[in-house]
Amino acid sequence: MIKPSQGRSRVVIEHISPQIDGGRHPVCRILGDQVAVTAVIFADGHDHVAARLLYRHDAESDWRFTPMTQGANDLWSGSFTVDRIGQWHYAILGWVDHFDTWVSDLRKRLAAQPIPVESQSIASRAREATIASAHIATEMFDSPGGLEAGPQPVSEDVQIAFRTGAVLIEQAASRAEGGDDKSLLESARFLTTLADRNLSFYDFPLDPEALTLAEKYPDLSLARQSDPVLSLWVDRQRAQFSAWYELFPRSTSTVLGKHGTFADVEAQLPEIAAMGFDILYLPPIHPIGRAFRKGKNNSVTSEPGDVGSPWAIGDAAGISAKTKAHPEDNGGHKSIHPELGTFADFDHLVKACQAHNMEVALDIAFQCSPDHPWVTEHPSWFVIRPDGSIQYAENPPKKYQDIYPLNFESPDWQSLWDELYSVFEFWIQRGVKVFRVDNPHTKAFTFWEWCLGTLRVKYPGTLFLAEAFTRPHVMHWLAKTGYSQSYTYFTWRTSKWELTSYMEELTTPPISDFFRPNFWPNTPDILHKVLQDGGRPAFELRLILAATLTANYGIYGPAYELCENAPARPAPGRTESEEYLDSEKYEIRQRSRITSGSLVPLITQLNKIRNANPALQSNGSLRFHATDNPQLICYSKATPDKKNAILVVVNLDPVYGQTGWTDIDLNALGLAPGQSFVVDDLLNNAHYTWHDRRNYVALRPGTQPAHVFRVAPLP
Amino acid sequence: MIKPSQGRSRVVIEHISPQIDGGRHPVCRILGDQVAVTAVIFADGHDHVAARLLYRHDAESDWRFTPMTQGANDLWSGSFTVDRIGQWHYAILGWVDHFDTWVSDLRKRLAAQPIPVESQSIASRAREATIASAHIATEMFDSPGGLEAGPQPVSEDVQIAFRTGAVLIEQAASRAEGGDDKSLLESARFLTTLADRNLSFYDFPLDPEALTLAEKYPDLSLARQSDPVLSLWVDRQRAQFSAWYELFPRSTSTVLGKHGTFADVEAQLPEIAAMGFDILYLPPIHPIGRAFRKGKNNSVTSEPGDVGSPWAIGDAAGISAKTKAHPEDNGGHKSIHPELGTFADFDHLVKACQAHNMEVALDIAFQCSPDHPWVTEHPSWFVIRPDGSIQYAENPPKKYQDIYPLNFESPDWQSLWDELYSVFEFWIQRGVKVFRVDNPHTKAFTFWEWCLGTLRVKYPGTLFLAEAFTRPHVMHWLAKTGYSQSYTYFTWRTSKWELTSYMEELTTPPISDFFRPNFWPNTPDILHKVLQDGGRPAFELRLILAATLTANYGIYGPAYELCENAPARPAPGRTESEEYLDSEKYEIRQRSRITSGSLVPLITQLNKIRNANPALQSNGSLRFHATDNPQLICYSKATPDKKNAILVVVNLDPVYGQTGWTDIDLNALGLAPGQSFVVDDLLNNAHYTWHDRRNYVALRPGTQPAHVFRVAPLP
Repeated sequence: MIKPSQGRSRVVIEHISPQIDGGRHPVCRILGDQVAVTAVIFADGHDHVAARLLYRHDAESDWRFTPMTQGANDLWSGSFTVDRIGQWHYAILGWVDHFDTWVSDLRKRLAAQPIPVESQSIASRAREATIASAHIATEMFDSPGGLEAGPQPVSEDVQIAFRTGAVLIEQAASRAEGGDDKSLLESARFLTTLADRNLSFYDFPLDPEALTLAEKYPDLSLARQSDPVLSLWVDRQRAQFSAWYELFPRSTSTVLGKHGTFADVEAQLPEIAAMGFDILYLPPIHPIGRAFRKGKNNSVTSEPGDVGSPWAIGDAAGISAKTKAHPEDNGGHKSIHPELGTFADFDHLVKACQAHNMEVALDIAFQCSPDHPWVTEHPSWFVIRPDGSIQYAENPPKKYQDIYPLNFESPDWQSLWDELYSVFEFWIQRGVKVFRVDNPHTKAFTFWEWCLGTLRVKYPGTLFLAEAFTRPHVMHWLAKTGYSQSYTYFTWRTSKWELTSYMEELTTPPISDFFRPNFWPNTPDILHKVLQDGGRPAFELRLILAATLTANYGIYGPAYELCENAPARPAPGRTESEEYLDSEKYEIRQRSRITSGSLVPLITQLNKIRNANPALQSNGSLRFHATDNPQLICYSKATPDKKNAILVVVNLDPVYGQTGWTDIDLNALGLAPGQSFVVDDLLNNAHYTWHDRRNYVALRPGTQPAHVFRVAPLP
Repeated sequence: MIKPSQGRSRVVIEHISPQIDGGRHPVCRILGDQVAVTAVIFADGHDHVAARLLYRHDAESDWRFTPMTQGANDLWSGSFTVDRIGQWHYAILGWVDHFDTWVSDLRKRLAAQPIPVESQSIASRAREATIASAHIATEMFDSPGGLEAGPQPVSEDVQIAFRTGAVLIEQAASRAEGGDDKSLLESARFLTTLADRNLSFYDFPLDPEALTLAEKYPDLSLARQSDPVLSLWVDRQRAQFSAWYELFPRSTSTVLGKHGTFADVEAQLPEIAAMGFDILYLPPIHPIGRAFRKGKNNSVTSEPGDVGSPWAIGDAAGISAKTKAHPEDNGGHKSIHPELGTFADFDHLVKACQAHNMEVALDIAFQCSPDHPWVTEHPSWFVIRPDGSIQYAENPPKKYQDIYPLNFESPDWQSLWDELYSVFEFWIQRGVKVFRVDNPHTKAFTFWEWCLGTLRVKYPGTLFLAEAFTRPHVMHWLAKTGYSQSYTYFTWRTSKWELTSYMEELTTPPISDFFRPNFWPNTPDILHKVLQDGGRPAFELRLILAATLTANYGIYGPAYELCENAPARPAPGRTESEEYLDSEKYEIRQRSRITSGSLVPLITQLNKIRNANPALQSNGSLRFHATDNPQLICYSKATPDKKNAILVVVNLDPVYGQTGWTDIDLNALGLAPGQSFVVDDLLNNAHYTWHDRRNYVALRPGTQPAHVFRVAPLP
């Protein structure tokens, strides 16, 4: 229970914050963040305590440290800046600070000394001496007519305290480096001289520099280090601030009826970059299975010419020995669908994206079509049914015979893990640094923790977005075990109350310490009722919410720009579908986003606002402000120094205009109570002068769906 | 990070509750408690999960277990009863339950089967067969004119599911004990028969008994056990429910001017027991130092005949070689002050207490007078000043030269720890099972954790009360490291708001999981202003609060019974003193509690009420109820079944009568909204019928300071 070596360590360190589940998982931060750490630290009795915050990047062997400062109720705090991505470690070192106790006690002893009237002038000479320095003071004693001229009354406990201090400072000198030991020994000698000569001081006998020097070399022999060492994962800024654009490459050809290629995607990059996106996310680019291939609108039978779902991965027969680009190019997760182009085309696209300040994100979906090469090469990676067949995906009585799930309970799990890991590594080595992972919650969590943990250390800067639309604890667990970003329930949070409570949960600890939300108003799988019913005004307001509530957001285009909102027809008696009619998941759909009525201008403006305003590039400062209308949601974000502050008001009603009064928490915007301020609407360049907390707002779907104000105090 | 052996384990177990600081400290419970444990448990994908709560007493080598049940949002719960005092361990075992998944999926598959009209009668015969048992059903197949008579349509996935089930049940049979394997193999054969004969069922083919039997032998090969194993400390009931009475033995002589003895204390036991106390707490009983002995009223100089403070422990010269009772009887912590009596007298007192259903609590104060034998035998256990003298206690500029604190940073700390530990062990071996520890927060915490941890395991049932009036985290830490009960801030919590918020903090987790409050309205060190100013009515109301708010309380008598309220005169300009005038800490004060106006009757009545009403014997059920008068505080406690419910209303004003209306949370008392009920005032035997939430109360200092109602629904 207690290490014998710690028997003399008197300091307790507990309640260290931040930490996730007792240190089981790392806390997440972004490069350049100041990491504020607090802890409860105390010792028995009345001795003073001191503490250091220890921290280091995993690649560093020695701790760096910064002093912690004591607040009320034994709560101590300190902070450090993370200047490198990757894994960091931190801990707290606490010790009983006998020197600081001595200083504090001596001050009290001296303050309690009676000062005889006749020696007050000597006291003030002594004070002058101490202000000058211990060195000068020592000389004064020895000079003719020095302080000796007026002998002082002796107080025994002060005299002993001087000797105690001398011992403590001599010990500090023995730990000192450079020439510091000399100065320290001089301070010690001075205290000894005072004691030897039975002289008492009325001011503190050491000057501040001498104190600081002695404090520089504390006695750490009985210090206690907090246990366990906690860890921190630092990502590049893109993990926290990103705008994603998803498209189906096969739909990008400009020749009607032709399968799109990487080259066609490349041709669209200027348009996409001009909208201001920084991640181009492609659904799976691998060969698509033929067995049980899904037809248009998710039909269980496909017609000749149907292109199938990109998530039905694998077609061993699709890669011929002649076209094989590399030894593992066998029609599975390390192959490219031949109609999209070659590896050279893919590499070209990756580079072209970089030239537009964008990154390619690939979709990793660990599942197989019956035609995937793993099915024949590694049948033990699947569940085998009693009749010898491989178990297809099912949710009884529904069957998904075009998909074979992997079996993470396979006795050959280690070879399976290695192969899955190598899929990521393969694409990382081709320049991909961002992955969107399909349904990670249906693969073993232990695998993810190992796989992402290994990849993130070996390839720092790689980001992973978890596409897990499932129960809260499961989504949180994926984030804790290595996912950099996560899809969320945003799509289904539509009322003011839902949005407010959900955002407050996401942007405060403990959730915000490990989970980075990415808000998508649509995906190829989800066309929410609000968009189906609300049309263009709904697309506008959901876009504005996504782009300003969280620093990470994305859209599936050009369905979004074009406000495509026709749902698949549900079977009679079934609940309404969130699937798209004529879904691009099962067919090629060519269309141009450069069309009148498209949302391209609004998207472009929003991304411009996000890039120009640091307040919108993180989530921690989000504050909601009251309004007197449940259809008007009002919130703000600001930089820590409040120099950049954004105030957003959105009309949640896609049909009717709404008016109301705000009740703004001015402090969140860096404003004083009662202050007037200017709000510049960055969506339409309108300017208003607002006064104090309550201000009038009128918004109208179609013409003015929201205000996105930059706030500035009136000069 | 991940143990390779766990690579195939797919279950996650997190957020286990209760636990203290990630398992760093044990959760505290009382013998017979039902320990409810919850956790978040889930696996990847859609497979079902099962979980067991594992638990065992430290002396048991095998886990006992109980199934956990799944609630909303992946929260699972289970509970076990602690039937033995001492240390317990608990953990959770979770696994993917393929059999339960199979059952659930098969039900869905069967429900989705089309039932041809012509086979419905066969379906119902099959249903009858399955209701009977798998065994009978198998026979029916084989009997002439059995189910074969009407062949069923075959559904391939149902047929394969039958075979899968047969495999799972055969595996369960291989793990089965007793004759269970035979029954299981029969179930498996029945499923195989169904599959072989291409027969489909429309009802579930196995009866509930067959399912239960298969579930009895789950496949735990890939189960995951939560880590770390958590611990629980179980105390006897006295740790949670106790009434303490403190007195100075030296004041108990009936001969005026004579030093009291253990025999004199024994003579008072009938009086004290009749008041209903169960712990008799004695300040230190050891020889008292002579050097710098304190005089009356804490004077720094003592007069001849002054008895000194019992906390100035140690007088090596006080025990002569002739009177030495045992080898370690050297005038220190293992000696008895000669004027109190002999070891035989002490042993007799301990036994006499037991005869009155009371226990003796000794005061352990680890500090020494300059005359303590440790000072000469072990100077290294103290701080030595540069002049060679031993450092006395001080709070500069105040000096306490009669006390030498121990130095827990001593290089000889191990011999110091052993000696301190042996002090407890010495008295435990003389029959003492309860200790009040003086100022434990001024001794090293690491020592306490080791010392109490070792003692509690070696001497189960030993209780320790921490007298630490210090900062919250420090008090909490002491409780976490082994103290069974703790003094609190109750003495200084006087307003309704203070009492309410403090009690809510103390009686809910996390605090209530490790900290057991003991409320003292007075101690020899603390005579609060409320008592100084409020006189007898204040003594009454503070007593009622202490005895009913928490299950542990105590008084220092006979000062309390006699409402002694004269404070020490503070020095001019100093803040008012909480010390008693003519404090018993420094002199003998003889007086009788059997005096008119004494609080003995009220105390007796309160202890009788506490002993008769289980609701008052623990704290977890405490609920506050609103009143419309800030001087009227209203609260209740009830047993889990609500059969015993106590409702208390106290007038916090010791001067004026107060009236007001309650607003009672009827649910906390086991009453329905709008219900009428009888309240019996256990203090004065008055009865009232109350209606619904709002009822009128009038209380008056002196005549009716409070209601202590037993609540019963109207028949």
